[in-house]
Amino acid sequence: MHLFYTPGINPSLHEYFLNEEESKHAVRVLRLAKGDAVTLIDGVGGLYQAEIKDAHPKRTILQVNSVQTEYAKRNHYLHLAVAPTKNIERTEWFLEKATEIGIDEVSLIISQRSERKEAKAERLNKIITSAIKQSIKAYHPVLNEAVTFAQFIKKPFDGEKYIAHCAEGEKLALPEAIAKQSRYLILIGPEGDFSPAEVEIALQNGYKAITLGESRLRTETAALEACFEINFLNR
Amino acid sequence: MHLFYTPGINPSLHEYFLNEEESKHAVRVLRLAKGDAVTLIDGVGGLYQAEIKDAHPKRTILQVNSVQTEYAKRNHYLHLAVAPTKNIERTEWFLEKATEIGIDEVSLIISQRSERKEAKAERLNKIITSAIKQSIKAYHPVLNEAVTFAQFIKKPFDGEKYIAHCAEGEKLALPEAIAKQSRYLILIGPEGDFSPAEVEIALQNGYKAITLGESRLRTETAALEACFEINFLNR
Repeated sequence: MHLFYTPGINPSLHEYFLNEEESKHAVRVLRLAKGDAVTLIDGVGGLYQAEIKDAHPKRTILQVNSVQTEYAKRNHYLHLAVAPTKNIERTEWFLEKATEIGIDEVSLIISQRSERKEAKAERLNKIITSAIKQSIKAYHPVLNEAVTFAQFIKKPFDGEKYIAHCAEGEKLALPEAIAKQSRYLILIGPEGDFSPAEVEIALQNGYKAITLGESRLRTETAALEACFEINFLNR
Repeated sequence: MHLFYTPGINPSLHEYFLNEEESKHAVRVLRLAKGDAVTLIDGVGGLYQAEIKDAHPKRTILQVNSVQTEYAKRNHYLHLAVAPTKNIERTEWFLEKATEIGIDEVSLIISQRSERKEAKAERLNKIITSAIKQSIKAYHPVLNEAVTFAQFIKKPFDGEKYIAHCAEGEKLALPEAIAKQSRYLILIGPEGDFSPAEVEIALQNGYKAITLGESRLRTETAALEACFEINFLNR
């Protein structure tokens, strides 16, 4: 299957022009010709079946034959706020895997103990885009620019809010904590965990403390574990 | 905490000599001195608290103060048989993550559609070892040398046997398939999935077909998903 991520398309269009880069890829690399079938995803739930109408190397014209909206729509909404890892590759693979398993929104948060103080969302977003193409997801997860923990914690969220941390204290496991088919926001700390002050601030702002099991997990593994648990519990 | 993986130790020892490499690391790199505390894991469930008795750069002597056997022993046994990925880094991170989350044995299987026909267990085992140190696991997962699917499928396994594949057909989800606190062997195929013939052979040999959810997952993600599910379902 030849899949293109084309956020510019919408279900009302019967014809769509691939941009220069996509056209070049379709015609010069994939060697697609008139009549060849292609699949398009718009990133907001639309999956389109189309065919090449004019295999122009700079302005390929597609004829849209059918569109399926809300393709593989999940019954819940998951927003993970994660401290980017010191080694950014670990955050990159978390994004790839979370996209495969199912996630709606990711926020990068710089916490007190974060060794990494910045992360470029643009580059990380490219990884998400290639992951939705690879795993055929019609919804493109939203990746938010890095903000500080202090900035993030004040933001409103319409749903259940959780903070995963390793310090002592009363914690719930997700199976007993969550309502099914709901909206979830989960905070995952940096390598050195959240500071006690940050945990306190989160609790004051309506976050509930959770545990992700007995194993000591790296930041990116904990984030993926949370992603896995939420998807699994909503099956 | 200064953690050493010392498979040579056993609970009956009150004194232990670090080998030359470990001694050098302890004395020259970590700059440990007489009386400093170190933790040892033997890879078969033993977690030892010890202290430096003689900080010799080539033959450091440790005094063992206490030992805990069956440290964080799991209530189940998980053996995953996975086709190594074309890009071996994907298999490497699967091994790291599976070790963090919890796994007992990994077999590398070369299947009909495997693009990668070999994988060196020795190098991959080093990744497992660093992962058990990082996540403080007293049990070292066993990694078996690569064998063909045909060789592997005939091996006896005392427990529940499953094959995860993407083709049509009747499949169970793990929550309905497994007995808790049991022994599990799960086959995960290569990028191109198992061939219909391989699936058939597996079914004839007592494997049950399972699904790991609706998402289209890469080989290493599917393997990790299976690892997540088995650990989660046994909590």
